[in-house]
Amino acid sequence: MNKKEGGKVKITILPERREIPVSLGENLLDALRRNKLNIPSPCNGAGTCGQCRVRFEQGAPTPADGDRRFLNSQEIEGGWRLSCLHKVDGEAAIYLVSQTGDLDTKAQVDISLKGGEIDPGVNAHFFQLSPPGRNDQRADLLRLQEGLGQELRVPLPVLRKLPSILRDSGFSLTVVKTEDAILDLLPNDHSKDIYGVAIDIGTTTLAGYLFDLGSGKQMAVHADRNPQLTIGGDVISRIQYGQEKGKEGFAKLQSLVLHGLNALIEKMAGEVGIGTSSIYKMTVVGNPTMLHLLLNVDPTAIANSPYVPVLRDGFALKASELGLVIAPLAWVETLPAISGYVGADIVAGMLYANLGERETIELLLDIGTNGEIVLAVEGRMFACSTAAGPAFEGASIAQGMSALDGAIHRVTIEDDKISCLVIGGKGARGICGSGLLDAVATLRGIGLIDISGRLCRTEHPLSLRIEGEGTEARFLLSDRVYLTQKDIREFQLAKGAIRAGIEVMLERAGITVDDIDRILIGGAFGSSLRPESLLRVGLLPPINVERIISLGNSAGQGAKLVLRDRKIAPRLQQLIEETEYIELSFIKSFSSKFMKCIQFPTDEQILALQQQGKEEG
Amino acid sequence: MNKKEGGKVKITILPERREIPVSLGENLLDALRRNKLNIPSPCNGAGTCGQCRVRFEQGAPTPADGDRRFLNSQEIEGGWRLSCLHKVDGEAAIYLVSQTGDLDTKAQVDISLKGGEIDPGVNAHFFQLSPPGRNDQRADLLRLQEGLGQELRVPLPVLRKLPSILRDSGFSLTVVKTEDAILDLLPNDHSKDIYGVAIDIGTTTLAGYLFDLGSGKQMAVHADRNPQLTIGGDVISRIQYGQEKGKEGFAKLQSLVLHGLNALIEKMAGEVGIGTSSIYKMTVVGNPTMLHLLLNVDPTAIANSPYVPVLRDGFALKASELGLVIAPLAWVETLPAISGYVGADIVAGMLYANLGERETIELLLDIGTNGEIVLAVEGRMFACSTAAGPAFEGASIAQGMSALDGAIHRVTIEDDKISCLVIGGKGARGICGSGLLDAVATLRGIGLIDISGRLCRTEHPLSLRIEGEGTEARFLLSDRVYLTQKDIREFQLAKGAIRAGIEVMLERAGITVDDIDRILIGGAFGSSLRPESLLRVGLLPPINVERIISLGNSAGQGAKLVLRDRKIAPRLQQLIEETEYIELSFIKSFSSKFMKCIQFPTDEQILALQQQGKEEG
Repeated sequence: MNKKEGGKVKITILPERREIPVSLGENLLDALRRNKLNIPSPCNGAGTCGQCRVRFEQGAPTPADGDRRFLNSQEIEGGWRLSCLHKVDGEAAIYLVSQTGDLDTKAQVDISLKGGEIDPGVNAHFFQLSPPGRNDQRADLLRLQEGLGQELRVPLPVLRKLPSILRDSGFSLTVVKTEDAILDLLPNDHSKDIYGVAIDIGTTTLAGYLFDLGSGKQMAVHADRNPQLTIGGDVISRIQYGQEKGKEGFAKLQSLVLHGLNALIEKMAGEVGIGTSSIYKMTVVGNPTMLHLLLNVDPTAIANSPYVPVLRDGFALKASELGLVIAPLAWVETLPAISGYVGADIVAGMLYANLGERETIELLLDIGTNGEIVLAVEGRMFACSTAAGPAFEGASIAQGMSALDGAIHRVTIEDDKISCLVIGGKGARGICGSGLLDAVATLRGIGLIDISGRLCRTEHPLSLRIEGEGTEARFLLSDRVYLTQKDIREFQLAKGAIRAGIEVMLERAGITVDDIDRILIGGAFGSSLRPESLLRVGLLPPINVERIISLGNSAGQGAKLVLRDRKIAPRLQQLIEETEYIELSFIKSFSSKFMKCIQFPTDEQILALQQQGKEEG
Repeated sequence: MNKKEGGKVKITILPERREIPVSLGENLLDALRRNKLNIPSPCNGAGTCGQCRVRFEQGAPTPADGDRRFLNSQEIEGGWRLSCLHKVDGEAAIYLVSQTGDLDTKAQVDISLKGGEIDPGVNAHFFQLSPPGRNDQRADLLRLQEGLGQELRVPLPVLRKLPSILRDSGFSLTVVKTEDAILDLLPNDHSKDIYGVAIDIGTTTLAGYLFDLGSGKQMAVHADRNPQLTIGGDVISRIQYGQEKGKEGFAKLQSLVLHGLNALIEKMAGEVGIGTSSIYKMTVVGNPTMLHLLLNVDPTAIANSPYVPVLRDGFALKASELGLVIAPLAWVETLPAISGYVGADIVAGMLYANLGERETIELLLDIGTNGEIVLAVEGRMFACSTAAGPAFEGASIAQGMSALDGAIHRVTIEDDKISCLVIGGKGARGICGSGLLDAVATLRGIGLIDISGRLCRTEHPLSLRIEGEGTEARFLLSDRVYLTQKDIREFQLAKGAIRAGIEVMLERAGITVDDIDRILIGGAFGSSLRPESLLRVGLLPPINVERIISLGNSAGQGAKLVLRDRKIAPRLQQLIEETEYIELSFIKSFSSKFMKCIQFPTDEQILALQQQGKEEG
């Protein structure tokens, strides 16, 4: 931004060239929000979610460390920055990502949310009906239907509202409806007041997006912990809880997630200043277990061979059937899955990434307790899920923790000095998934971890930070946080499982690593991982780092697409039909591949990667 | 029945020629029921409902007085008798009306319940599905849908049941479904265990009919008081209660009728030995206010000009939306009405009577607090409702009461002696609607009531039973029960309103009394009235008594038709479209007609009626 003396400057919002007044020194995210621009920021300005990105056309500030964490060099060169990391220091012109939901598509991959079109399948119309009289004794409902010009299904609660709505408002009312049913009646004209939410139920995080269904504009974004974390960190532990406690256990799990969703929705509605009962559509993605638990449908069979879900397809229901705080008759739909472990979250990500629509060979990867992998080869697709274990969630790691204040989330070495970035900026008290990956990748890079995964002392000055011997060895990341030999072993199991899954998929498709054009990293967690680190530990096969694209919360983005446009739903079904599901636990070669993939890349392989990056880049 | 010595004889049930053992001297109704034959008898053998009729092919007993009350001479000649009025005195062969629901159609009117056909729109199928395995990871729901061969809508409670039903029963299950949705899942084979109920919600009486939806057989019949009677005897007083108490008032009225229906259904299910949760369809008729109250939809606008209901059309919902004891997802439907005062009960009666399908000119009449009148003239139909007031319910009559034990229900004079039949056969403590009609008709017949309605002493010996003078005069019917001058005035208002309604209808259709081919009396109450008495008081226009047909509970019979055959529903819609509703309160000539119709027929007119009866008869 061009520096300027004095208190106030203007920032121009592109492409509409709207000018907004801001104060010099004001945080850019705060300034945009104060001007009622909708910038997603699940971490609320903490610099840890990477979602508040904007693109500077003029006046781009010097990139911050945090920018580099979430944006690759081409994006940074193109003017992308995280708005929460920068203070206003002069005039500037920017594009807001939130207006369209677009990532920078010029770079490498055609991923688009069409900004203008909206056809959510829920709409509101204002009517002035004529009142009854001696020559018009039509029943209230018939009067309404003839006014509408169609005979929509009328649920009982709507029928009950009808006589008072008509008479209290002089027969002028707003009808909220879908193609075949009336969802609500409101007195007078409220035809502009209908909203929708897209929800991603992650095992760890609930993410929500609030939309104005009339204009198609995103109004608010929020993320929160999944309250089921108090029961267990992963799907299996939650299923076990339900099995042990019987019906009450699953009811409790449902009640927890509903409580979390209601709080999330109330927060978004409060921010925008609307009532939650103005929300008439909700589109939900999540892994199959999460969606079963939301519906209180027993997911036990997912946990045992042959891993069968009760529900694979999308499911539509009324909000009141779950006890959501939105309009009681709101149309709630969960999106379809591929199998018991490749869920609606992945299918939504495939949709968002337009997977299978390009002639290139692409790998879509969602990394978490389970690593879901989709390989697209000229229109054919293969999907699998591999149990990576809880290392990335921090559960089996000595000082592992979620990505909360005090977690080391990035580790780099410069001039033989180790540098750890901590969420919140204060003292480190643990390490989260992305920090773990960085720590292991960095130590492997300087040779303090060998290809077998053993911590070993070398000539490197940082060898001094290794304490203990053998299985008791550990590396001090900071005064209080260390990485143990056992942590590294846990990490190897996780990354090895995912890499082995990738290898099985390549084999099944009859291609090799060299055939891969792009690797797309989906999911909020996966997108927080540094591609360089993923390559260095061998979680990803060797590929030029510039060919790795982080999609952000691709599941949530896909849910938003379906929320905004009901015509997209058939595309989901098509994606599922075009995808061959591979059950890794039934594949004999998986175990041997897994054993191999536990190892780290050799020094030569790592060097080659770096060379390749430079040459192609 | 042919007399025979000894304890046991056989009765042959036609047409199947099944022989049942009975004891000589046993009550015929009791004997049939003991042999698990389903004979309707809402009055439970008291001889007051006329529904337990059977037709003797051989061995018909001498007709009893009670037979003549409910059956006309042609029916009696044809072998029809009320089974509760006769003891077994020998072998006999009989047809049961309950098997088909048929009245004797040979006589005069083509009224039929097709016995064999049944297509209720709810059916149950047994399936054996293959269990999942390594080569078949289909989701439970997909497995079910592919087994069914169709993608039916699956409500959430069904989805929740699915995994345990499948696994607890080795993947063999019964699916209860409609054309487009699954209503229930049952373990193993229960495909024969689905039932339905037809319900008539009268202002005074709830009547229910339980059917086996597989075979189409009627299994049980029951009637009970409408518990809303504790709030008020007629629709207006109940609406006023709701208006005064607000939402809670209508909720209370709903809860009362639901309580009554649940008790009725439990009684029928208990009798047949099934669970109420095996009932998957319920068809409900009633006047518009009764149906609004059932649904807890505010009927206030029905009570005030221009008398507009909220709902005129049929309405479908799930049993759980009301809190009925039947299967939670059972398909409940209320039938459509014509207007705020010509309800589904009348439309069901029109259906049962096949009104508008014949080339004759017919009048259908339902007599109660409101008298609903439908006139069919060569395919065109006219309908109206007239407020008769509460006289027939006994509410405004000095010693008026419902048709319960102790009520005088029939009054005749023979050899200058008055004879009163009392329900229960013991001492009289009041007079019910049919008794009131008979008393007035009889006294008018012997001239103790003049054409203006005044009680007057004549030469007739029964003049001695008149006490008091002028407006204080009264006639002693028995030691404790009398008919007052004021009672006669109340009766005149009631009968005058109905007759005036008939006159308006005839005028509107451009015909005269002489053009009427038949008068059909619908409704359980109306059917308990003696046609001769209706003519003598001038409630009906002068017509040969043989042309008056009592249909019994025509509303309940119509509801049964729709319960058994969903293809009939469009016919209801057609009936409504073919019917022109006439709002009597908007017809100027109604008041002058009403004033005229308050008078009774002259002696000459009464004599002419009797002559006509003899000549044509």
